[in-house]
Amino acid sequence: MGMVGGGKGAFIGAVHRISAQLDNQIELVCGAFSSDPVNSVASGKALYLDEQRCYASYQEMFEKERELGDDGMDMVAIVTPNHLHFPIAKMALEHGFHVMSDKPATVDLSEALALKEIIEQTGLLYGLTHTYTGYPMVKEAKARIKKGLIGKVKKVVVEYPQGWLANKSDEQSKQAAWRLDPKTAGISCCMGDIGVHAANLAEYVTGLEITNLCAELSSNVSGRVLDDDGSVLLRFNNGAQGVLLASQISVGEENSLKLRVYGETASIEWSQLEPNSVWMKFADKPSQLIRAGVGEMDEITQANMRTPAGHPEGYLEAFANIYTQFSYQIRSRLFGLSEDVNIGAMNDVPGINTAIRGMAFIENVVAASQSELKWHPF
Amino acid sequence: MGMVGGGKGAFIGAVHRISAQLDNQIELVCGAFSSDPVNSVASGKALYLDEQRCYASYQEMFEKERELGDDGMDMVAIVTPNHLHFPIAKMALEHGFHVMSDKPATVDLSEALALKEIIEQTGLLYGLTHTYTGYPMVKEAKARIKKGLIGKVKKVVVEYPQGWLANKSDEQSKQAAWRLDPKTAGISCCMGDIGVHAANLAEYVTGLEITNLCAELSSNVSGRVLDDDGSVLLRFNNGAQGVLLASQISVGEENSLKLRVYGETASIEWSQLEPNSVWMKFADKPSQLIRAGVGEMDEITQANMRTPAGHPEGYLEAFANIYTQFSYQIRSRLFGLSEDVNIGAMNDVPGINTAIRGMAFIENVVAASQSELKWHPF
Amino acid sequence: MGMVGGGKGAFIGAVHRISAQLDNQIELVCGAFSSDPVNSVASGKALYLDEQRCYASYQEMFEKERELGDDGMDMVAIVTPNHLHFPIAKMALEHGFHVMSDKPATVDLSEALALKEIIEQTGLLYGLTHTYTGYPMVKEAKARIKKGLIGKVKKVVVEYPQGWLANKSDEQSKQAAWRLDPKTAGISCCMGDIGVHAANLAEYVTGLEITNLCAELSSNVSGRVLDDDGSVLLRFNNGAQGVLLASQISVGEENSLKLRVYGETASIEWSQLEPNSVWMKFADKPSQLIRAGVGEMDEITQANMRTPAGHPEGYLEAFANIYTQFSYQIRSRLFGLSEDVNIGAMNDVPGINTAIRGMAFIENVVAASQSELKWHPF
Amino acid sequence: MGMVGGGKGAFIGAVHRISAQLDNQIELVCGAFSSDPVNSVASGKALYLDEQRCYASYQEMFEKERELGDDGMDMVAIVTPNHLHFPIAKMALEHGFHVMSDKPATVDLSEALALKEIIEQTGLLYGLTHTYTGYPMVKEAKARIKKGLIGKVKKVVVEYPQGWLANKSDEQSKQAAWRLDPKTAGISCCMGDIGVHAANLAEYVTGLEITNLCAELSSNVSGRVLDDDGSVLLRFNNGAQGVLLASQISVGEENSLKLRVYGETASIEWSQLEPNSVWMKFADKPSQLIRAGVGEMDEITQANMRTPAGHPEGYLEAFANIYTQFSYQIRSRLFGLSEDVNIGAMNDVPGINTAIRGMAFIENVVAASQSELKWHPF
Repeated sequence: MGMVGGGKGAFIGAVHRISAQLDNQIELVCGAFSSDPVNSVASGKALYLDEQRCYASYQEMFEKERELGDDGMDMVAIVTPNHLHFPIAKMALEHGFHVMSDKPATVDLSEALALKEIIEQTGLLYGLTHTYTGYPMVKEAKARIKKGLIGKVKKVVVEYPQGWLANKSDEQSKQAAWRLDPKTAGISCCMGDIGVHAANLAEYVTGLEITNLCAELSSNVSGRVLDDDGSVLLRFNNGAQGVLLASQISVGEENSLKLRVYGETASIEWSQLEPNSVWMKFADKPSQLIRAGVGEMDEITQANMRTPAGHPEGYLEAFANIYTQFSYQIRSRLFGLSEDVNIGAMNDVPGINTAIRGMAFIENVVAASQSELKWHPF
Repeated sequence: MGMVGGGKGAFIGAVHRISAQLDNQIELVCGAFSSDPVNSVASGKALYLDEQRCYASYQEMFEKERELGDDGMDMVAIVTPNHLHFPIAKMALEHGFHVMSDKPATVDLSEALALKEIIEQTGLLYGLTHTYTGYPMVKEAKARIKKGLIGKVKKVVVEYPQGWLANKSDEQSKQAAWRLDPKTAGISCCMGDIGVHAANLAEYVTGLEITNLCAELSSNVSGRVLDDDGSVLLRFNNGAQGVLLASQISVGEENSLKLRVYGETASIEWSQLEPNSVWMKFADKPSQLIRAGVGEMDEITQANMRTPAGHPEGYLEAFANIYTQFSYQIRSRLFGLSEDVNIGAMNDVPGINTAIRGMAFIENVVAASQSELKWHPF
Repeated sequence: MGMVGGGKGAFIGAVHRISAQLDNQIELVCGAFSSDPVNSVASGKALYLDEQRCYASYQEMFEKERELGDDGMDMVAIVTPNHLHFPIAKMALEHGFHVMSDKPATVDLSEALALKEIIEQTGLLYGLTHTYTGYPMVKEAKARIKKGLIGKVKKVVVEYPQGWLANKSDEQSKQAAWRLDPKTAGISCCMGDIGVHAANLAEYVTGLEITNLCAELSSNVSGRVLDDDGSVLLRFNNGAQGVLLASQISVGEENSLKLRVYGETASIEWSQLEPNSVWMKFADKPSQLIRAGVGEMDEITQANMRTPAGHPEGYLEAFANIYTQFSYQIRSRLFGLSEDVNIGAMNDVPGINTAIRGMAFIENVVAASQSELKWHPF
Repeated sequence: MGMVGGGKGAFIGAVHRISAQLDNQIELVCGAFSSDPVNSVASGKALYLDEQRCYASYQEMFEKERELGDDGMDMVAIVTPNHLHFPIAKMALEHGFHVMSDKPATVDLSEALALKEIIEQTGLLYGLTHTYTGYPMVKEAKARIKKGLIGKVKKVVVEYPQGWLANKSDEQSKQAAWRLDPKTAGISCCMGDIGVHAANLAEYVTGLEITNLCAELSSNVSGRVLDDDGSVLLRFNNGAQGVLLASQISVGEENSLKLRVYGETASIEWSQLEPNSVWMKFADKPSQLIRAGVGEMDEITQANMRTPAGHPEGYLEAFANIYTQFSYQIRSRLFGLSEDVNIGAMNDVPGINTAIRGMAFIENVVAASQSELKWHPF
């Protein structure tokens, strides 16, 4: 694997590197870690890479690695600022490399659609690190709903409150700066950064699609252009109702992503801050606290766990699940499948369709917020 | 105290009796417990009342008790089905009795406004058992916000999910039957029964007023006319945003009333199922779990607690707080105030203004739900 | 009911009065609230009692109330300091009154045995407010173990940490003063005050008896004579092991009484600070959170609940269960049983045998602590 | 790094590999994964190792890798069954390799003492994967106690309940078989496997030493020779009291390792199942929930975290902290220290002294259990 972006000082680059290599199925062999060639080489060397493969630009990397043939990288991880995701992914695909992109795939929906065409033309693999769906107990929740254990879904409540942008003084950090700037972040801050995770989680777990939105986005600090908070009413394609809350001004909240799905016969609940548990609640019997590894787990859940019950897994492992399953996809193309690989899990990697759905969500939720009418079609 | 309604088999009548007498400030002396005279007497005798004061009708009770003068009751508790609350309260006031009414005060807003006029004309006291604001830690949350401990309120999330009406088979019970029938319940089931509690809690704790609503009410079981679920976006009079969720189809939920208020510098959280705790969360320091009786409590909180830290109080004590503080209001009129009475707490009893606000909420949220426009003024 | 003790300023007297009257089965009609006649009358008048029945001493009360015959009290509640419990109970029984005594029954085991003889001779009823076993979900835990739902009990862990006596400065309060003084508290502070609750809870819920103790009691503040902390290893009569922890120096703990019982096939857990829940855990399936009123409850549990699911009950209701069930015992003697009364629940009131067991625990645990040998027989 | 043990089918070998490589500071380059040469090669190839460096025995590996000089491995990870830990570590050290050993270091105390001598003679580095002390919030708890934030420690409660050996049928697994066999497990099952973790955690966090033990170990399944449950009273070198509970028969418990430390002014609490939190409780102010990354963290805590607040870390990251800090120790010897490395954190790796302390605990707790006297010196 090669990497574009993620030089010294970047947060998400390190997360990608740890996650990609966690299961020993992917090796980082080269990178264009920075637009500054000196920094790129320094970053690569700090990672114990061959200096020859620490490139000054992604263009150079794609050229040189293609020339290396079988000795070159098979895939590239893109961890740059958002507006570069698309051109880099495009060029990588056109040079024959599979792509794992940090979220969001592109800056807008039209780019995402264009990307899909390129993927289809090249026939290569594309993955997107929608991390939260990588948690094993999220997969368990999805499996249980799919098996009918809560009956028909009637109501969905998904929320993602954070507090880190609550005040003017919070705007100093590099992380905050680009997210609040329309030039780098696109048309939305809160919905684009975290609302889209909430929407994706709701659709992933329920297997439903949002069909209509009623949204109220707001900006709560003077001088701020983009939204930092939003509340959205949802309608789903099976007639279910829903609510989505996302906020960056909810002081004191960490990444409190939480999903509740109410069905006809039971409900199911998952929370990112306690990711190894799922709650099921019933009308006439005790609630169940389902812990990772205790009792029967779905095959796909199991394929995404490394440790037995009682050994908490976390965010990095959820992230790694996406990479590792993606590596099985690549390996399957190159060498065929090992017997150990769970095909269902392997095909569970978020890809271009998730990317398109996400970009469409962002555009629609912003449009819904601007509308005076209550309901906006998705 | 006399009671109208609450004969054998009724749930809320017993709650009122326990709560009214819990602090030994109010004594039940008479009642018209049922429209069936035989049942009324039987109910009263089971309560060890003088048979002479177990009346066949509330009309009879008001007449006879007035004749008793100082030996007659001072106040009446109304615990009948909703549509009778107004005529009984009216007659009680006109006969010179203070009134404590079960929620809702009336069947619609116009009755509530009419009731206010009668109260003002008679100069008598009127209380409404909006139970949840009787919890000491709800009062503590209110006090902390009032003292500025979370800064200006920016966002409010209040939810009241229940699951007891999720299915057709749940409609058999007496409790369900009248709530789902427009003739006895009015224009709303879910919002009228529990949404109004959520709205009241949000306004009570924050000290703010809802100014605009965007609502989606729904009915999720075939044949059902009234709403059993609703999601509402809120705007408050200080510019804060909010969300209110109420549901009777959220399978597995008990009375999971929960309030979160996010201010500029901190947030505050309370949940009815763990009523003796309040959470405060901050941007840059540990969250605080504030337990009833541990550390400094507001004077009004203290005036509504009976036990020191470590002795959980519950729903009946919250209910009793309303009655006991109301008894101090009456006593203050009759005899002046004891030194022990906390005047702030005494004046904290929900009354006709809360009633009007509640009826207005119900009418407006139904109207908002029917509108095609997003925002409906409150 | 009459009351001895519980004048102005006392905590537990008020708890007894609220609890006794909560279900409207018992009425406070007289009292000797203080050894100071003026205070006794003042206290009684503040409770709206007839001044004639506010006595200067318990001796006077027992005499006068006996003379009143059927118009006199039927039972007496004893809420004085511990060393007076026995003489008052003795005199009450000898004057023909049933007795409800605050815990502990007596100051030592020999008194408790003497009291049993008097009870048997008089044929009257005797109850002891071992509050925690009054909680409905404690009864549910007991019922589930009795039904075999966890298999044979193998291990018991019970703990009761408090922090209120952690420091020298905590000794100022009246509550602390008498508990730390051997003259009023007897041979133990921590074990006598709360360890005995833990032991009682363990034996009550499991239905087992402790047969051997290994104890380490300690006194952690300079100048303190009695224990303020203790850890005890237990053996039970079915071969199970156990541990009992009690502490008054565990800073930051409220009344964190908690019981865990591990059986061959499942475990069960209850905590006083969240009294409306019981946890059951299993080897190969999800844990269950059993909430009061959700799903099937044992008959005795139900007979000790007032509110449906979602309405938390607390300490006062647990206390009231003991009084109310005791009132059914008295009523049953006087008038026979009502159909509504659950006989099993009525016979579930802690009485003289619980008292004896408790006094024996205190004496044995102190002896065990003083022994150099590991195990001390109980 | 080379590895001894951890071939296909082993659990802990994979944990070591993931953890060692997680921060990209250590690379697995060779191994003797199995005593079966074919399996060893197959295992190594599945890990993408050079077949030439997949050895048939650890003896061969140490010889060959020494011959490779600077191109050979620097350190070896030992993940075999317990009784082989010592001879392998000995030979590795004698061939010039640093050693990271799975817990326990040896089968008894005398071996551990012998190992210390060898380490001192060779001057090489030795680490022991006492995983739980690798959690950042365990380090935070330790730091807060060291800073005096809870005052002098008065009481320690540490417990490690598991349920996986509760029944006869649980003995089938490979994991169970060797732990219950004195030949491979030594003189204790429960205390040797998990009790020692609890003791280590208590001493690590408090900075105190256990000086006396009173123990009751038991075996709860017929035919079982070694202990599967134990309760231990503790005395510490500062006069504090303590309790240690460890169990493998507590049905329904996962790895519920939990530590509570009560000081004069506050208490602190950590639980492995929610490892990113620490609780502090106080006498007169709200409890604090301290979350990883929220508010000020100690420098050593920070040096052991990879993700900001809101991204849960887990067991593998705790494990990786031990490896990564150990790699800094090696690197420091080889190349000097990078500026980024926190020296305090680097010196926080469990080593031979921890190993000796652990083996001594096991021998003493077994002796204490066999004694008829209450207290046994440690």
